[in-house]
Order: sequence, then structure tokens, then C-alpha cells
Amino acid sequence: MRQLYFKRDVARGVNGTYDWLVDEVQELGAELKKGTDREATEKEFADVIAWLASLANVMGIDLESAAVNKYNYKCPKCQRSPCECTF
Amino acid sequence: MRQLYFKRDVARGVNGTYDWLVDEVQELGAELKKGTDREATEKEFADVIAWLASLANVMGIDLESAAVNKYNYKCPKCQRSPCECTF
Repeated sequence: MRQLYFKRDVARGVNGTYDWLVDEVQELGAELKKGTDREATEKEFADVIAWLASLANVMGIDLESAAVNKYNYKCPKCQRSPCECTF
Repeated sequence: MRQLYFKRDVARGVNGTYDWLVDEVQELGAELKKGTDREATEKEFADVIAWLASLANVMGIDLESAAVNKYNYKCPKCQRSPCECTF
């Protein structure tokens, strides 16, 4: 995603890229509500992760490292896998 | 994420999990607006991707495959990398 869209993402900036991410999350929600077209749903998931990656690129954040640092195959609250939190 | 949270995610269902995803996207937005704490921002990115993965798991969708199927290292509109779309 960095190679594909980085220049455009940086030109758009953090706020503009975040607004696109929100739009894509809403589109995913609409598609989930319809719940009829699996292929379309997969594409909406792809769009959300693409825009999340774009936003991370603009911020200079590595999305995968961020996820591994926080979750690292165990729940960050109870430290277990599967999670055993009782909330 | 599947191993960690799958049981709880399925019990919560698609709508409940989607609502959590929306909350996390809003938290990420709030953190980006503050723009002061890089570590906190990385954690918010991690939360968004974790909830997106949870939602995909509930739907039985492989997030990585969905992204690769749609983007596959080139722009799905112009078919180029970097993207050369003129919109």
C-alpha cells in the first residue's frame, strides 16, 4: 500500500485520509447489513484495511508491528490466549 | 486474533462486533486529533486492526486474502503501481 498510494496519501494528509477510512467503514457496515453478496463484503473489508494502511503510512506507523506489539498472540488485558477476561 | 477472541466474537455477533469496530475507529480519530502521543496512536491502530480481524473472523472471511485479492500490489482501478488514477 505504501508503494501504491503513498504520494497521494501524503498529499491528502492525516485528516483527509482518516475521513476516507470512516467512509469505508460505513460502506462495510452497509454491506454487512445487506448481507447478500459475499464477494462485495470481502472487497469492503479490503478497502477498510487499505485505507487503514494508508493512514498508518501517512503517520509513519507500521501497522503490523503496531498490532504485534500490542497483541502478540495474547490478550493485552488477561495475558492469555484464548482471552479469559471476564468483562 | 481468531484463536484469541473467536468464541467471544461469535457470541457477540456481526452487529455487535461492527459497533466495536466503529468505536475503535472513533478512538483512533480522537488520538490522531490530539497528535501528541505516538505510542498511544500505535495502540489505537492495533485496536482497529484487531476489531477488523475479529469482524472478518465472525464472517468467516480471511482479511489478508481479501486485501490481496482486491489490491494484489496494484491499483484495482488503473492496474498500476504506484497508482496513476487521475481522479
